[in-house]
Amino acid sequence: MDADTLLLHFAEDQAQADRLAQATGFAVAQVVRHRFPDGELKLRLPPQLPDRVVVLRSLDHPNEKLVELLLVASTARTLGATHLTLVAPYLAYMRQDIAFEPGEVVSQRVVGRFLASLFDAIVTVDPHLHRVATLDEAVPVARAVVLSGAPLLADLIAQHHAKPLLVGPDEESAQWVAQAATCHGFDHAVCHKVRHGDRDVQIALPDVDVCGRAVVLLDDVASSGYTLAAAARLLLAAGAASVDVAVTHALFAGDAIQVIQDAGVGHVWSTDCITHASNAVSMAEPIASALR
Amino acid sequence: MDADTLLLHFAEDQAQADRLAQATGFAVAQVVRHRFPDGELKLRLPPQLPDRVVVLRSLDHPNEKLVELLLVASTARTLGATHLTLVAPYLAYMRQDIAFEPGEVVSQRVVGRFLASLFDAIVTVDPHLHRVATLDEAVPVARAVVLSGAPLLADLIAQHHAKPLLVGPDEESAQWVAQAATCHGFDHAVCHKVRHGDRDVQIALPDVDVCGRAVVLLDDVASSGYTLAAAARLLLAAGAASVDVAVTHALFAGDAIQVIQDAGVGHVWSTDCITHASNAVSMAEPIASALR
Repeated sequence: MDADTLLLHFAEDQAQADRLAQATGFAVAQVVRHRFPDGELKLRLPPQLPDRVVVLRSLDHPNEKLVELLLVASTARTLGATHLTLVAPYLAYMRQDIAFEPGEVVSQRVVGRFLASLFDAIVTVDPHLHRVATLDEAVPVARAVVLSGAPLLADLIAQHHAKPLLVGPDEESAQWVAQAATCHGFDHAVCHKVRHGDRDVQIALPDVDVCGRAVVLLDDVASSGYTLAAAARLLLAAGAASVDVAVTHALFAGDAIQVIQDAGVGHVWSTDCITHASNAVSMAEPIASALR
Repeated sequence: MDADTLLLHFAEDQAQADRLAQATGFAVAQVVRHRFPDGELKLRLPPQLPDRVVVLRSLDHPNEKLVELLLVASTARTLGATHLTLVAPYLAYMRQDIAFEPGEVVSQRVVGRFLASLFDAIVTVDPHLHRVATLDEAVPVARAVVLSGAPLLADLIAQHHAKPLLVGPDEESAQWVAQAATCHGFDHAVCHKVRHGDRDVQIALPDVDVCGRAVVLLDDVASSGYTLAAAARLLLAAGAASVDVAVTHALFAGDAIQVIQDAGVGHVWSTDCITHASNAVSMAEPIASALR
């Protein structure tokens, strides 16, 4: 790709788009959006598009954004684009990868195929793939690129702590914790989690001595904050010197930040995959490399 | 179709679904919905579905509902359904049928094709088709049925007024006004409208004597209410004895009802295509006939 590639974005993602445009050298344009009183959207794209178009859209609070992608991708092809790449730093609906009860919608599969019907390629960061091994199983496009926020978060942690202990709040976080720990040779471990509801989780600490340690809880995504808060309380009760939090995706629904801070957490760091006050690391360079 | 057909609906459409189930004799089941803190939806269908499934979903405030339809229709096919009908008493995005500016998304075409990719048939009421002649141009399915609320609204108007004057607030309403007037031989006419914005419209009354007449403003859809309010004010200033409003689709966004009542309108009647306090006529029987 080169300067003839156009990066399309939405108004609220202006800062994220500017960083990615700077890193890639792509021309950049905003999708003009008007909302009618009845909730319908009117979208407008640049009237003439180059062959290669990249659409930037992080898919937190995804439902309306999925409709926007349907409208934008379909229209981009009628306006001249022949190769469409979706850059979705946060990819939605990746956690519902099986029917936990009979009749349940396997949203990962449905949304993945929907996105694959619209785009030729996808670039995302730390998708929550659990029972599915690779992204192209979930989103069957010709080119599916998975990046990770863990190395950049590890660099940031290394600036703050000489010998931190990285702890994952549950078994599913093991892959990110191990990846971040490897970068700098950090000690690491994961908790055991039993979930009873969206905001009702039980945590058991790993069998390591946390006494006097600077602990950093690391995960791909924080939503309600209840899991991180429960883990932080246990770690501090077990004698940890400090507990910070580092996540790739700062969903932080509702009062999540308050819930985490009330548990005694110090720093809360995140990548800019989802725009949030806690953003401390930009994924623009790794995403730009994937697009080159 | 027969009792082996299953009518699927969502919790908030229970009353509408009950009326349609009664009129059709179809078995009925609710899609179970859970919303995660991050805005994602988890949906569950009955684990075994018959060949023929009808999904009831009126598409006011359409964006999230379009994602629900994607999830439900895709999953219904994996659970045994071979013929899917969408009953969308109100069909969204029908007004954006051309690019008014270069690069604008022609949402009618995109959303229509999206729905056609999910369903084998569609039944709707008074879709706002303006520059497109038939529904299957907009939603290219094997069977596209268009019903009208105008005859039932005309029956209701006849119960209240012996010799009403039906007035359409703009030229696009002419087809519904003529249809309703024909049922009972009512006098009828349409206003001339110039729109400057969502809530900024100019109306010119038709060249008929409204003095002392019981006027009923009739249209397919009321959204902001500003057009109806502007027309009502002019009619009352011109000497109309009363002005009532009858619409198929009660979108009534924001303070629309207040805006209409402040203009001196008496009754506000609507069909139950969109559930609203003004609902005075049920479309269950005509929809049931279309499904038989």
